Amino acid sequence: MKCKLCNDKAVIKLKAHNLSLCASHLLAFVERRVKNSIEKYGLFKKDDSLLVAVSGGKDSLSLWQILKKMGYKADGLYIHLGIDGYSDLSLDKALSFAKKLEGRLWVVFLKEIMNLGILDLARTLRRTYCSACGAIKRYIMNRISIEKGYTVLATGHNLDDEASSLLGNLLYWKEDYLRRKSIVLKSEEGHLVKKVKPFFLVSEREIAAYAVISQIDYIYEECPHSRGAKTLLYKEILNMIEEDSPGTKLNFLKGFLKRSGKVGEEKRDEKPVKYCISCNYPASGEKCFFCSLLERVNPSGSIVYREYSFLR
Amino acid sequence: MKCKLCNDKAVIKLKAHNLSLCASHLLAFVERRVKNSIEKYGLFKKDDSLLVAVSGGKDSLSLWQILKKMGYKADGLYIHLGIDGYSDLSLDKALSFAKKLEGRLWVVFLKEIMNLGILDLARTLRRTYCSACGAIKRYIMNRISIEKGYTVLATGHNLDDEASSLLGNLLYWKEDYLRRKSIVLKSEEGHLVKKVKPFFLVSEREIAAYAVISQIDYIYEECPHSRGAKTLLYKEILNMIEEDSPGTKLNFLKGFLKRSGKVGEEKRDEKPVKYCISCNYPASGEKCFFCSLLERVNPSGSIVYREYSFLR
Repeated sequence: MKCKLCNDKAVIKLKAHNLSLCASHLLAFVERRVKNSIEKYGLFKKDDSLLVAVSGGKDSLSLWQILKKMGYKADGLYIHLGIDGYSDLSLDKALSFAKKLEGRLWVVFLKEIMNLGILDLARTLRRTYCSACGAIKRYIMNRISIEKGYTVLATGHNLDDEASSLLGNLLYWKEDYLRRKSIVLKSEEGHLVKKVKPFFLVSEREIAAYAVISQIDYIYEECPHSRGAKTLLYKEILNMIEEDSPGTKLNFLKGFLKRSGKVGEEKRDEKPVKYCISCNYPASGEKCFFCSLLERVNPSGSIVYREYSFLR
Repeated sequence: MKCKLCNDKAVIKLKAHNLSLCASHLLAFVERRVKNSIEKYGLFKKDDSLLVAVSGGKDSLSLWQILKKMGYKADGLYIHLGIDGYSDLSLDKALSFAKKLEGRLWVVFLKEIMNLGILDLARTLRRTYCSACGAIKRYIMNRISIEKGYTVLATGHNLDDEASSLLGNLLYWKEDYLRRKSIVLKSEEGHLVKKVKPFFLVSEREIAAYAVISQIDYIYEECPHSRGAKTLLYKEILNMIEEDSPGTKLNFLKGFLKRSGKVGEEKRDEKPVKYCISCNYPASGEKCFFCSLLERVNPSGSIVYREYSFLR
């Protein structure tokens, strides 16, 4: 198998694109796809100040590397969730990578704020683990973005993540999720930072190849508490369809973006009526869920950011 | 396993409804679901005159039986497609069933009209077999409905058929198909008969049990030329999801009907601009595809209906 672009030995065949590529052209391919998404969907501009949500996994580390390589001002944020045997390891990966990248990494320890790890907090919130974790991470990512003056928050959600969640939302016609799903969500001055997913149209397999070829040292294990049977099932199913008809996942998401017709407008829900009196984040009552939770579990607590700067 | 309603021995467990049922309660269950759909979605009324599209398979024969049993005026229509070793056998099943039911069955032989069977016609039309077959059957079903004064055309499409086609249409965002998909499509006076799918929310498995318990003698084989790999794959996939989360298929379709928001209005495309000058059916040019085809392959041909009446 030869690279379609240079005739060197190909390392991967991308059926969806009818393309076999060598190592260096695979890197260029992934980077170009990110560049195209940034431009086509207006994700951000050269003078934006980006914060990349970094988990220590292949997606977020690859994204950070690509954005830095493209010359964007992009810092990282790692949230330590207090998961035994997992959080410390993934923090190590994130820190080593920040050093290699000569970047700035913000680190937030959930236990420093709440006195509790994510498992206990989920129980307190009476939510499933993944739901509580998602809500808390979204809150912290948004808050540090606003407080530290970042104009854009970038996450590493890839094509497979998004296609499987879109499928799940369609099977159950979850209107709220369908309305909110996009490659870009616009900001609300002082309340919500602009959020983007530059890997929305890049597959997990393409990113994994990118990370391996780039010798990115990422954490292989999935979070031991995440990944409900459903997400895995939907991914498996979409892979069966992809195997039968290469390109389906990509068309599924591109068609959705086109159809939702609001990409140019950068979707966001209708403005919520209220904002938290203590932090300005959208809230259903007087206080947002995060400030209420903090008051409950650690009244004297506050948000602490640690800054690790390897900038040169 | 006991019947939840009468404590007799259950013959089937319906996980989507959390219900185990004996033979007689399964029959009542399927009949009630059809009745509910007829009422909830306004499919037809007692004074409507129904034509049931009958293939000789379990779905269409069960549907015909249920509608007759409910007291509707419902005749059948069988279209002989000229498929060697399949059409004759399925016609036999349809005719025997009409006799058992003491009903009236219209039979149309495609070769009597066109001089050709469906395989040759598909080639002539340069369409896939299934696409040509669907278009020709829709034309004939509509035409006989209009000519013979039926007010409603009922087909046996079941929950699994509809869920798998909905999934396929969503994966590729086929807007036209999505807009047209419904449990009921309204009529256009003199051009298009009202079309309904009373089994839209009844699963293949439920109908198969109904047919077996009712001792309906139906043709087991699928059409040897139908069933692309995709339809089968989507059905398999939806069954995997159903196994994991019983009731998903039903919610998928009900949610779609609710969301499309036009069920009450009985969907139909925007009125086509033109009608065929020779038969009044919607046409893109001067003549519809069917009249053009007939002119091409058998200029002296015309539509012939054979009537088999076992009415008492």
